Amino acid sequence: MTAADLPSQHHEQYQAFKQLGLKLDMSRGKPAPEQLDLSNALMASLDGYQAVDGTDGRNYGGTIGLPEARELFGKLLDVPAAQVVVDSSASLSLMHDVIIYSLLNGTPGHAPWVREPVTFLCPVPGYDRHFAICEARGIKMINIPMTEAGPDMDLVEKLVAEDASIKGMWCVPKYSNPGGVVYSDAVVARLAAMKTAAPDFRLMWDDAYRFHHLGEQKLEVASILDACAQAGNPDRAIVFASSSKVTWAGSGIAALAASPANIAWWTKHAGIRSIGPDKINQLRHVRLLKDVATVEALMEQHRQLLKPKFEAVLAQFEHYLGEVPGVSWTRPQGGYFIDLVTPQGSAKRTVALAKEAGITLTPAGAAFPYGNDPKDSHIRIAPSFPSLEEITKAAQGIALSLRVALGA
Amino acid sequence: MTAADLPSQHHEQYQAFKQLGLKLDMSRGKPAPEQLDLSNALMASLDGYQAVDGTDGRNYGGTIGLPEARELFGKLLDVPAAQVVVDSSASLSLMHDVIIYSLLNGTPGHAPWVREPVTFLCPVPGYDRHFAICEARGIKMINIPMTEAGPDMDLVEKLVAEDASIKGMWCVPKYSNPGGVVYSDAVVARLAAMKTAAPDFRLMWDDAYRFHHLGEQKLEVASILDACAQAGNPDRAIVFASSSKVTWAGSGIAALAASPANIAWWTKHAGIRSIGPDKINQLRHVRLLKDVATVEALMEQHRQLLKPKFEAVLAQFEHYLGEVPGVSWTRPQGGYFIDLVTPQGSAKRTVALAKEAGITLTPAGAAFPYGNDPKDSHIRIAPSFPSLEEITKAAQGIALSLRVALGA
Repeated sequence: MTAADLPSQHHEQYQAFKQLGLKLDMSRGKPAPEQLDLSNALMASLDGYQAVDGTDGRNYGGTIGLPEARELFGKLLDVPAAQVVVDSSASLSLMHDVIIYSLLNGTPGHAPWVREPVTFLCPVPGYDRHFAICEARGIKMINIPMTEAGPDMDLVEKLVAEDASIKGMWCVPKYSNPGGVVYSDAVVARLAAMKTAAPDFRLMWDDAYRFHHLGEQKLEVASILDACAQAGNPDRAIVFASSSKVTWAGSGIAALAASPANIAWWTKHAGIRSIGPDKINQLRHVRLLKDVATVEALMEQHRQLLKPKFEAVLAQFEHYLGEVPGVSWTRPQGGYFIDLVTPQGSAKRTVALAKEAGITLTPAGAAFPYGNDPKDSHIRIAPSFPSLEEITKAAQGIALSLRVALGA
Repeated sequence: MTAADLPSQHHEQYQAFKQLGLKLDMSRGKPAPEQLDLSNALMASLDGYQAVDGTDGRNYGGTIGLPEARELFGKLLDVPAAQVVVDSSASLSLMHDVIIYSLLNGTPGHAPWVREPVTFLCPVPGYDRHFAICEARGIKMINIPMTEAGPDMDLVEKLVAEDASIKGMWCVPKYSNPGGVVYSDAVVARLAAMKTAAPDFRLMWDDAYRFHHLGEQKLEVASILDACAQAGNPDRAIVFASSSKVTWAGSGIAALAASPANIAWWTKHAGIRSIGPDKINQLRHVRLLKDVATVEALMEQHRQLLKPKFEAVLAQFEHYLGEVPGVSWTRPQGGYFIDLVTPQGSAKRTVALAKEAGITLTPAGAAFPYGNDPKDSHIRIAPSFPSLEEITKAAQGIALSLRVALGA
């Protein structure tokens, strides 16, 4: 250990950092303005409002989405367009409503969930908004540890086989939030084929980062819909995706892909809620995004903007935390987050110290059901929104906060 | 009765009409293309994406809506902006979700509705999509007859006082769908002040036609939020409105106005479902609609397009049905519908005959809970979508169908 690495030294550095009076919000995985700029053509005048089937995009109707929008998402998700619904802005809303309709009406051929206790399996760390839906709508959650290849399948298989109250499981199969985990083919196959005590068990397959690569290699995850169909469980998985982190985060379009039975079920229930989604926004998106190649080219532009920010954070962590025992972090190949793993009992303290230094992080524990990280050892880092200069500074501040928390 | 009015004569006219091979869908209250054209500036390039508070409309966030959108709807609804939420496209979705959150979570300070049987009062004839929400989500419905001044308040007061399962009531207070009824001040006052056995009783106040005048006189309905507040029931009413029939029916923005407690409750629950509405569409709308005067001028243009269509239907009805006993129809001062009232037991038959003649009407009974018009005597006429020529022809066909049904 050199003099520069003495605990007192880091305390001084932290104090000096505080004096900078930084004010940075890194609490959410928001795209940066220059990423949103990539899709500013959405703001341009739309050339006509007729869909390919003659639908006037401005008028009522069309719960299932416009044909060209379904076609585009079908190609992007590698699913027949007939098995795709395209809706308004956010995929989170589609997930929420799948759960609402299951609670109040039941899935095809099954009783409403709300009559009995309902439990969901939650791979952790995971996405706080998934867990918030369960908590808000009265669904109990069970933590499932993550491995490098996906959720701990031995535990998952054991639990779903014995407990019929387990009606669903949250999955972010690629570049998971926040751990960056990519589900292996074996995990996908086991999720599709496992025996569940509940006949109406659902995989909530949030394919949020399907096109959101950071590395040179574009990692692929096996098709859960194909795997489920092959395993004789065609209605088990519902796939969600959106253009939120492709075009404009707040004004994108969202898609749901599933078995024909699930699509019919969804369309029936969504048709009660709404006369139809914003089809003009679907037209805008189809005309901008065009096809898979255009989307991939756009995502490459996102990658060029995001990659340096992730590298800057990793470099700062390496510099300040590389030799601190018990500290590690993920080096994601895609997605929007780095998971900083701290020694037990130090995440909350670190987040509080960072806050004092002007850096707002996602609350420690947020990546766990009920906001409770049992080991208090995960901090979600969201490098996307700040500028490269800001994120470099912020990573330094977070690292110093952790060292001060550890007295290391 | 002249020779031209003999039953056989009408039968022949109906047969001749059938030969025209018309194909007209009048099943829904859709704006006509030329009405949608009035807002084609929505398609034009948007000049900037910053909200007045600096929010980047393209990014995540803002469950409650942009300040300028809330301000606009506040002025339009005569409510402080702080008591307004502006959301994505459709007010129907907001109504649906208010019921969902009430079912699963309960209104502020009260238990979830779903634990006990829930009943809604439904003034009839009414809006089929309101009733569909109740039917789909397990809420029992009770018909309430309409008077010329609103629902039969003696019956309403009696039922809500004695039955604690009655948790809500649908109200379209102005130019009601389909009867064109305008609630009187006395009805508004009684709804606000009446004693309800359920402490969490809700008026679902669908102000769908607030600006949608057909007559010279712009009728006003007393403020239900003010009346409820004055009566000591501030949380009783939730007001819904949208730009659907102001700008583009499928791509508008929707608003919910309520007490501060209800706004906080809504925002909390809607924030679980979504990270925020499409704020870019809110910006587009605010820049197009600007203020109350601009909206009123736009609605006057709608009126000029709609009025001749309503007059054409009324003229045809007068000509073909004016002397038929037991047949009457509404002469609405606003809104989107005419209610054709037939002798008992002849509405379904008339709709079927019209269908044979190429005119698709809203199914008879649709304006009643469970699609069941006990007297089978109401046909909802939606003159807005077809051209003036088409609607004139269609009204003739409908009238002939009714005469054939009646053998009159």
